[in-house]
Amino acid sequence: MGKKVIVGVIGGGEATPETLAVAERLGELIAEKGWVLLNGGRSAGVMDASARGAKRRGGLTVGILPSRDNRDRGTSEHIDIPIYTGMGDARNCVNILSSDVIIACPGREGTISEVALALKNGKPVIFLGFEDQGLFRSGPHRRSVRDAATPEEAVRKAEEVLADRA
Amino acid sequence: MGKKVIVGVIGGGEATPETLAVAERLGELIAEKGWVLLNGGRSAGVMDASARGAKRRGGLTVGILPSRDNRDRGTSEHIDIPIYTGMGDARNCVNILSSDVIIACPGREGTISEVALALKNGKPVIFLGFEDQGLFRSGPHRRSVRDAATPEEAVRKAEEVLADRA
Amino acid sequence: MGKKVIVGVIGGGEATPETLAVAERLGELIAEKGWVLLNGGRSAGVMDASARGAKRRGGLTVGILPSRDNRDRGTSEHIDIPIYTGMGDARNCVNILSSDVIIACPGREGTISEVALALKNGKPVIFLGFEDQGLFRSGPHRRSVRDAATPEEAVRKAEEVLADRA
Amino acid sequence: MGKKVIVGVIGGGEATPETLAVAERLGELIAEKGWVLLNGGRSAGVMDASARGAKRRGGLTVGILPSRDNRDRGTSEHIDIPIYTGMGDARNCVNILSSDVIIACPGREGTISEVALALKNGKPVIFLGFEDQGLFRSGPHRRSVRDAATPEEAVRKAEEVLADRA
Repeated sequence: MGKKVIVGVIGGGEATPETLAVAERLGELIAEKGWVLLNGGRSAGVMDASARGAKRRGGLTVGILPSRDNRDRGTSEHIDIPIYTGMGDARNCVNILSSDVIIACPGREGTISEVALALKNGKPVIFLGFEDQGLFRSGPHRRSVRDAATPEEAVRKAEEVLADRA
Repeated sequence: MGKKVIVGVIGGGEATPETLAVAERLGELIAEKGWVLLNGGRSAGVMDASARGAKRRGGLTVGILPSRDNRDRGTSEHIDIPIYTGMGDARNCVNILSSDVIIACPGREGTISEVALALKNGKPVIFLGFEDQGLFRSGPHRRSVRDAATPEEAVRKAEEVLADRA
Repeated sequence: MGKKVIVGVIGGGEATPETLAVAERLGELIAEKGWVLLNGGRSAGVMDASARGAKRRGGLTVGILPSRDNRDRGTSEHIDIPIYTGMGDARNCVNILSSDVIIACPGREGTISEVALALKNGKPVIFLGFEDQGLFRSGPHRRSVRDAATPEEAVRKAEEVLADRA
Repeated sequence: MGKKVIVGVIGGGEATPETLAVAERLGELIAEKGWVLLNGGRSAGVMDASARGAKRRGGLTVGILPSRDNRDRGTSEHIDIPIYTGMGDARNCVNILSSDVIIACPGREGTISEVALALKNGKPVIFLGFEDQGLFRSGPHRRSVRDAATPEEAVRKAEEVLADRA
């Protein structure tokens, strides 16, 4: 009983085929762990791919949408529980605050803003291909950042983080 | 595949024993239908009771919290997926936008604000003991309001509404 | 030095000619007191009329908009400082939290939600034609509600409230 | 009549004496131009210093606060119009959306998130000491970024940007 483990996956709405494959595999692994996958919920890029992977393995997926209409066709069909915030980019905060750990795939401004908010709020973040040019490595929150080269390594590090926080 | 049916339950953080019993029974019935129960997520009043009922029947519960800390002890232990918004009462909007239909138990200002937002946004609302002194019965949105005397009737009317919108 | 007095004016985006005249006169009186007028910022109903009145008397007007685009043509031309929230109805919370006292003109669901949030947050509210059918008169927050028959009386009561809180 | 020019100033709640001096001078120059200065409103770092400068020159200052209580003692005394959002870091979006142009002083995660949101939303940003390690220089939005070495240069570039958009 009680709260499930929630793993946030962030990354671009536009993504290369390689990134999409990584995101989809990541979704599979998160589902296999029994964790809830939370992302931005749109039918695009890392969001759609990670949710697709999670559903293939019977996982549960939550999407925090910027839009307000719960018939919004831009919602990924792989999201079980779409949360419609109607607050645009301000929803990025909700993604971060609701996740126990965050895995960052490649992305641009939206993803950068989420990584920044995650670190500001003391959330552990695992970089899985997210490139920050060192920006988040020098500050007081640098210890919250971990690197992973593969989805498997990202999930293993997420597991360590979750064990530390338990 | 795709979005689950999400039923929002709103009502007071303070409630009489009778209201709590109704909310708990309502949660059971929602779970039995296979619907996701969404509420405000706190360990108080209608929120806690409805989630408890849903979990007793193996349902899935989502709470949209006003707080920002995902270790917040004020979160109901019957919530599977707590969404931390960090935006106080502004989260009431999220509850409404994310629900397919809303069932309103007795409540005060917070509940009134949610009923108002629901009607403004064209969401069907079923009054299950919520007393509005007729305020929402005269305006252009009065057709979105239905009355139910029991949890069973509320769920039956929710079913009708969902069929209409399908 | 320091914060100016901020008076929130709420009311319908649609309004009768009588209500518009009252709102415009109210805006004039608020400006004459040297208070900042804060409202929902749209070029409609009570928002537009109250801002027009305030500007005629050289007042300062702040609008809290639901939209995200600061070239939004739906913004009242009588607003000096439009704050674009991009969060739809969730901006109603911001209106309330930022006001020292609130004056409620006739309105429907949006206005009802704001009155409810105001009382929930302990803000004094003066009803200037806002009709609640008694809904807000019975609860624990009823003492926060005052009635006014004219804009002049509303401003006099706002003055009393502000003196009490100073 | 109509909307005033609003210049957003962002930067750290903690800042070096050099940065504080730059922020204060920037506030003076913004006020001298007749622009409204908008920032995060807290009595700390770049927020407090820039507002102090603006008030010294008779400018108008707006603060978008994360807190919900309009008696919050953490509000800068140099803010004329504090807007209380009650939504924590999600208020960063409001700062960005409400500004015509943004000037970024040195800052950390909060400031990075604001720069990212600004570029995502097509807002021009002038870097005045903000160090991004090149992160925002390679993407599609790089043309929205300008550099300034002094407050005077920042204001001159802001003027150019505003002229382009008029």
